Amino acid sequence: MNLIGYCRIIAKILQSQIVCHGYESAVFCDISFLFKENDIFSHDNSCKRLFFIMENKEKYPLLSTIDSPDDLRALPESKLPQVCKELRGFIIDSLANNPGHFASSLGSVELTVALHYVFSTPNDKLVWDVGHQAYGHKILTGRRDRFHTNRKLGGVKPFPSPDESEYDSFVAGHASNSISAALGLSVAANLEGRSEHVVAVIGDGSMSGGLAYEGLNNLSSTSNNLLVILNDNNMSIDKSVGGMSQLLISMHSSRFYNKFRYMVAKCLKKVGLLNEKRANAVIRFNNGLKAMLFRQNNFFEGMSARYFGPINGHDINELVRMLKSIKDMTGPRMLHIHTTKGKGWEPAEKDATVWHQPGIFDVETGERIVADGGSPRFQDVFGETLVELAKENSRIVGVTPAMPTGCSMNKLMEAFPKRFFDVGIAEGHAVTFSAGLAKGGALPFCNIYSSFMQRAYDNFIHDVALQRLDMVLCLDRAGIVGEDGPTHHGAFDLAYLRPIPNITISSPYDECELRCLMYTASRPGMGTFVIRYPRGKGSLIDWRCPLEIVEVGKGRKITDGKDVAFLTIGPLGKVMESVVARAAEKGVSVAHYDMRFLKPLDAGILHEVGRNFKYVVTLEDGSVKGGLGSAVIEFMAENGYMPKVETIGIPDMFVEHGTPAELYGICGMDEDSVLRKILKYKEQ
Amino acid sequence: MNLIGYCRIIAKILQSQIVCHGYESAVFCDISFLFKENDIFSHDNSCKRLFFIMENKEKYPLLSTIDSPDDLRALPESKLPQVCKELRGFIIDSLANNPGHFASSLGSVELTVALHYVFSTPNDKLVWDVGHQAYGHKILTGRRDRFHTNRKLGGVKPFPSPDESEYDSFVAGHASNSISAALGLSVAANLEGRSEHVVAVIGDGSMSGGLAYEGLNNLSSTSNNLLVILNDNNMSIDKSVGGMSQLLISMHSSRFYNKFRYMVAKCLKKVGLLNEKRANAVIRFNNGLKAMLFRQNNFFEGMSARYFGPINGHDINELVRMLKSIKDMTGPRMLHIHTTKGKGWEPAEKDATVWHQPGIFDVETGERIVADGGSPRFQDVFGETLVELAKENSRIVGVTPAMPTGCSMNKLMEAFPKRFFDVGIAEGHAVTFSAGLAKGGALPFCNIYSSFMQRAYDNFIHDVALQRLDMVLCLDRAGIVGEDGPTHHGAFDLAYLRPIPNITISSPYDECELRCLMYTASRPGMGTFVIRYPRGKGSLIDWRCPLEIVEVGKGRKITDGKDVAFLTIGPLGKVMESVVARAAEKGVSVAHYDMRFLKPLDAGILHEVGRNFKYVVTLEDGSVKGGLGSAVIEFMAENGYMPKVETIGIPDMFVEHGTPAELYGICGMDEDSVLRKILKYKEQ
Repeated sequence: MNLIGYCRIIAKILQSQIVCHGYESAVFCDISFLFKENDIFSHDNSCKRLFFIMENKEKYPLLSTIDSPDDLRALPESKLPQVCKELRGFIIDSLANNPGHFASSLGSVELTVALHYVFSTPNDKLVWDVGHQAYGHKILTGRRDRFHTNRKLGGVKPFPSPDESEYDSFVAGHASNSISAALGLSVAANLEGRSEHVVAVIGDGSMSGGLAYEGLNNLSSTSNNLLVILNDNNMSIDKSVGGMSQLLISMHSSRFYNKFRYMVAKCLKKVGLLNEKRANAVIRFNNGLKAMLFRQNNFFEGMSARYFGPINGHDINELVRMLKSIKDMTGPRMLHIHTTKGKGWEPAEKDATVWHQPGIFDVETGERIVADGGSPRFQDVFGETLVELAKENSRIVGVTPAMPTGCSMNKLMEAFPKRFFDVGIAEGHAVTFSAGLAKGGALPFCNIYSSFMQRAYDNFIHDVALQRLDMVLCLDRAGIVGEDGPTHHGAFDLAYLRPIPNITISSPYDECELRCLMYTASRPGMGTFVIRYPRGKGSLIDWRCPLEIVEVGKGRKITDGKDVAFLTIGPLGKVMESVVARAAEKGVSVAHYDMRFLKPLDAGILHEVGRNFKYVVTLEDGSVKGGLGSAVIEFMAENGYMPKVETIGIPDMFVEHGTPAELYGICGMDEDSVLRKILKYKEQ
Repeated sequence: MNLIGYCRIIAKILQSQIVCHGYESAVFCDISFLFKENDIFSHDNSCKRLFFIMENKEKYPLLSTIDSPDDLRALPESKLPQVCKELRGFIIDSLANNPGHFASSLGSVELTVALHYVFSTPNDKLVWDVGHQAYGHKILTGRRDRFHTNRKLGGVKPFPSPDESEYDSFVAGHASNSISAALGLSVAANLEGRSEHVVAVIGDGSMSGGLAYEGLNNLSSTSNNLLVILNDNNMSIDKSVGGMSQLLISMHSSRFYNKFRYMVAKCLKKVGLLNEKRANAVIRFNNGLKAMLFRQNNFFEGMSARYFGPINGHDINELVRMLKSIKDMTGPRMLHIHTTKGKGWEPAEKDATVWHQPGIFDVETGERIVADGGSPRFQDVFGETLVELAKENSRIVGVTPAMPTGCSMNKLMEAFPKRFFDVGIAEGHAVTFSAGLAKGGALPFCNIYSSFMQRAYDNFIHDVALQRLDMVLCLDRAGIVGEDGPTHHGAFDLAYLRPIPNITISSPYDECELRCLMYTASRPGMGTFVIRYPRGKGSLIDWRCPLEIVEVGKGRKITDGKDVAFLTIGPLGKVMESVVARAAEKGVSVAHYDMRFLKPLDAGILHEVGRNFKYVVTLEDGSVKGGLGSAVIEFMAENGYMPKVETIGIPDMFVEHGTPAELYGICGMDEDSVLRKILKYKEQ
């Protein structure tokens, strides 16, 4: 059916006011092929979608014929540049309207097309290292027409997930896991005699993570045919740091060698010594030659992986040629490609940090559309306050694992560059390095996203808490984070930190309290102090309150009441002030306490509650198992109080992606749900 | 005072029956210099100690004059070989009688002496990577005469600890943290304008840990003067694995270069171009030369650390010479020394794995004294059963991070070498690699010591649980481990695992149940299955029971009773059977339940308990916050039961070292303490 045909159908739908409730209606309209069974769509949505798809057909004539990599592989190689061009355009158009991770995926367009062209996915396995770079992969693997739902509740998942597509070989939310995971896949295939190929694609930013190195270090000790592609754009989310990055840069200078190798190969071909079959042996020989001639003991060859490259990762034909030539070799291999983050979108090429996750933007002007005003984000309050404190206290330093912009520590970087340390994607090092700084007399504020802090759990126990060091651990993105989904929710921190001895665990009620907790934590002798706070905005417009000491282990009463004790920790408590008011309207008098500290607990408040209330509701933006709710129940049991305690928090499941509001609803942590729990008092 | 003088004093003590209760008595006897103030010692002990010290004076005439590194530094360099000889002899003699980590410390004798000789400790900071190699350091830094208390309750700590000595700059229980920690110390010193030197000593085994790499990777991005010494004995606890180890071996072949550099330096000296002041520049030049002449892009130089070596780490004079020459250079440096684990003790040189921690042995014959008989260790039951299961199920593979002998997976290695993977000290990789294996169709049994599993927490959440993979995680050394102390107790696993969705958490009552849980976990569709069990021996002699399915989430009643419900998990429950009997003698009837599963909980048992008992005692060999006790209290609260629940487990503190029996006593987890808690029923 051609474009006119589609238009006729749309006209028919619009004129006849047919309500498309589902697949059956679509069948009736003869447009069922545009939808998947079980799609639920309204009239409006289906029309929008139809327009969207039609528009795409026009704009992306080649891409819109690619419903799976099989379609891609059916194309002649000469068509691939056009595919790349359309794929890049599609990503730009999509993300202009539906925000997501932008620059990384633009940089990997050619690589993605080349990989699916050369390898027989999904039988061959691609493992992406963090899914930022995998939007092209999603679009080529059957998710093109649903890509406008990317990161939306029930829509395309934010990061590759085997639950979503057989083309997603492994989960890819946290950096640096691809080599280890792909090595496992490759070894398993070998053990079972399957001949599938396994490819890991890792960015140079992820290479700063110790896990990537542990994976590399094990490449040579097992029988495997893993191909690791190092997608080197000399950037992580902020600028790549550390020696590995410099090492990679220095490797680029070995162009001469590669030219030489190419000449040797050409020469061998001429005299009939090189054919496809012998490619394997020749490349081995080439590497031997390399080592012999140049004594170039490069890192990857040191790891016993054969090393190829660097090549231009935006030359699709060169990529295809290289991948074909090394595809069927045995043993571990590393292909080093050089790409530009944000390739093809000038503003992003110039400032990939801003364009990592730019929000929506105008495709015509290239300008980001930023909603202004309102409360600041917690991260901004953190960043500003840290500088304020650092001005007064020269011992204060800042440490972040690759998130200076994400956690706003870039403010400290600008104000006190020598007292700021971005250690790259290396959470374990961030914490142990901070411990060393603390032992050496500095006062580190180490800021890590809550879910990434899971990477530094042992470092925090062994290197920090055991030594009772004066250090402040700030956990940003604690609790439900929204669109980044299950790999990124900071669900577990309260539960996994609470058993650790010697530490203080706190969460601020609002931005002002965040400031005061930071101030308190920076006072002498405060020991190991954790402050956790959520992603996004707080509640105060005027947040620059004076810095005051908060008494450690002391909460406060927000509202007096007599029927229900409502114990909250963190800014979700502030949100629920309205619920307390609504409960009062329904005749239930709620005493609302902001606990502030999970450890030490405010025993004063808890005794008061234990003595005076028969019904207690706890609320925390974290796993309901092991956190504040558990602590309150334990306290009541230990002290012989017998109230009925209802605990509200993230339930015992991995929460999917969606807006925070949607997800709080799903978790029973929204205002209505909390109100219902409070009103259950009447049933007691 | 000479030997005769001492003998006279002893004779006097023995004859006069002076009771040496403390320091005052020692003063009275004029032997106060042998003791520290606040030492508490009995008559017997003081005599023993006096004999011990006198014997040492004779056997180690030089070493016994070294009460601190200042004494060492006062010696002429020519005496150092003798110091090394005596230090080595002292370590051998001590460990023959008081077991500990043996082979590593013998390998680092010369290095230890050289470091304290050249650097002004404790102002200069030494950071050891795992304390296995630091016994010589302890002996030279004022702990010689107390070294016979090493690893004993209240005695010298098992691993370096700043709590014990100002010479211990940082905690060193878990591998691979030294570079990150020392970098922090060095950067902090620079920030505050202190000119102290900081040295990290890391073994090649620890180099397989990602944290070490993260540390190295950050060497060049900060202003620091860190010296990293790579103590390369080509061994971790078992044999070093992976590419890094091969890389280090290949570096040894660069002898020619080092000779060449030496010749250049000699030549420069001759013509008057080289003096001490310019050493820095020359070495820089040498490295440039190295790079230019040989295009040898070595890993450490790639990390922007200047690289020296390899040199013979048992040549004390060469070590001192080298350390002196590079001591005052600025910027990060790496010195690569080559040592032999177990150096100077032939059996250990031949089999360093066995002699890593050999137990006591006979100094004359060199034979280890192994107590035979009794129950097997849990690790042996694990190892044997794994082979049994692997014979029947070809999908089963084994993964261990450097502990094949420690967890007895060496049995699988012997039986099915291709299905066994020792990944080196790399817990994160062990878990993510296992996840890859599982996704690829294999069924991995990944065995990690409980406290080291803290290193792979995120890997387990993100790469395993989120994907609901069929994988078995076996946590050895769970709970109190004894002499290895606070860094090694597996205290937190139950608490930190419980909040993770999608997983099963179990602990066997005895060896037979361990077998059955392993068998159950290996059945199809069991998902992610954790089995945790303690260090040491179980209770059964005849443990080869038939393999039977255990119903997931089902515990069992061990003893019927009516007064108190006693809920236990793990083998500590078995130990407490005697307590139940003793309680019965005291008229308290105890219903003892073995819960077996922390997750899912046996709701059947808990409803039964909630309905029928007013007094409940829980017991677990893990943190009392967050584990079984918390789970039981939560269940009771959720379901409206109101029993009084007493929870017993590891209290909210880091537990020191000692025998397990001593530590259980300290934690209130011994039989008497548990009995007391049960008998409190009568007060209800």
